[in-house]
Amino acid sequence: MHRIKLTVAYDGTNYCGWQVQPNGVSVQSILQKAIENLLGEKTDVTGASRTDSGVHALGQVVVFDTDKNIPDWKYALAINQRLPKDIVVQKSEEVPLDFHPRYTDVEKTYEYRILNRRTQLPKERLYSYFVPKKLNVAKMREAGDYLVGEHDFKSFCSQKTKVLSTVRTIYSLELIEEGDIVTLRVSGNGFLYNMVRIIAGVLIKVGLEQKEPEEVKEAVEYPIGSAAGPTAPAHGLTLVEIKYP
Amino acid sequence: MHRIKLTVAYDGTNYCGWQVQPNGVSVQSILQKAIENLLGEKTDVTGASRTDSGVHALGQVVVFDTDKNIPDWKYALAINQRLPKDIVVQKSEEVPLDFHPRYTDVEKTYEYRILNRRTQLPKERLYSYFVPKKLNVAKMREAGDYLVGEHDFKSFCSQKTKVLSTVRTIYSLELIEEGDIVTLRVSGNGFLYNMVRIIAGVLIKVGLEQKEPEEVKEAVEYPIGSAAGPTAPAHGLTLVEIKYP
Repeated sequence: MHRIKLTVAYDGTNYCGWQVQPNGVSVQSILQKAIENLLGEKTDVTGASRTDSGVHALGQVVVFDTDKNIPDWKYALAINQRLPKDIVVQKSEEVPLDFHPRYTDVEKTYEYRILNRRTQLPKERLYSYFVPKKLNVAKMREAGDYLVGEHDFKSFCSQKTKVLSTVRTIYSLELIEEGDIVTLRVSGNGFLYNMVRIIAGVLIKVGLEQKEPEEVKEAVEYPIGSAAGPTAPAHGLTLVEIKYP
Repeated sequence: MHRIKLTVAYDGTNYCGWQVQPNGVSVQSILQKAIENLLGEKTDVTGASRTDSGVHALGQVVVFDTDKNIPDWKYALAINQRLPKDIVVQKSEEVPLDFHPRYTDVEKTYEYRILNRRTQLPKERLYSYFVPKKLNVAKMREAGDYLVGEHDFKSFCSQKTKVLSTVRTIYSLELIEEGDIVTLRVSGNGFLYNMVRIIAGVLIKVGLEQKEPEEVKEAVEYPIGSAAGPTAPAHGLTLVEIKYP
């Protein structure tokens, strides 16, 4: 038996997210079909991150098991030949059979792209959130700094979240300006459901000067459990990388 | 009578190009319908550049005439309400009645984006040309320098081109590297049919070391009239800006 790890990029626009859903086509189901078609046998395909509908990925991590003796690097090419153009395997490699993409200490990096200019740009519409009013990025940075470190992020997740602990560690949080694009880049040891999109939504409120950076500080110091701000739309978000030890 | 100039951005993916064609939907026809719907009257919509099928625009220039007395800046908002999301008017302003977008000395700027990495990125697939083999950008720059200035670009246009003169002036030609993206940015007083895509195709051949920079020099110095190289695909190209005096 071999366990194969894939690093997968996708444009989430036309999918209902990573996971199989009753309605819509999931990235997982498309990948599973392509892998089963290649192997000629049924297999389970497990993803590290259950990205939401419309969320993109550069480095989703996916594993499956097989008894076939195909050199590991060949899977990327062979699977890509069976995939639509909006899903592309970047790399395939064999990993130990006890490697699990979800239950391992990792560093995950997400990017949230904001198009900050007076008029929308058509080529950006599916890959960034359009904010026409000028953002105060310095204030966003000030607020973002309060989120770095180990905190209870109860106020930064969907209130439907059912997890034992809402404590997570953010290793770094940057706001990068390139022309009209403001990119929030955040790395951490794991993110709660909707956490990055809520962080983006809260920081955008700060950037629009509808919220003070100190309110973000309070929201992590005294997690009362109601959302600290709106959830920014899915299409601005990309799962960039998952680093395993 | 008022002449209104629009600056228009579009994602060319779903269109047969700027101009009305027997098959497919053109950007011009969509804009014309939106403007006629707003004005409640027939009008002609003239574009500065007949972009091909799949080519994008940030700054296409478009004019139409009307007797309506609407403040010029309001047209952008009102027309955008009637457009699909892949076409967005960036600006509207009144111009003199003798302003013609096509028959004026202008500076046009195009960008051709190349994704140069071993695997395709899904989010880039519609907006850049994927070249998996590493490009020698220094050689591309050397070749590109020979194209700057006034030259007979007979070997850099579609051989179906019927124009009086194939002499054009390129004001600047840059190759910009940002991560995995190599952008060819070229400005000139006008471009022949397919000229930017042929320049891109030729420079990519040079970058792949399948052609020497000196061959590009010869092709502009001794224009024999057969294409100097392949035409790079349309979806990498964006009409960035048209500057009027």
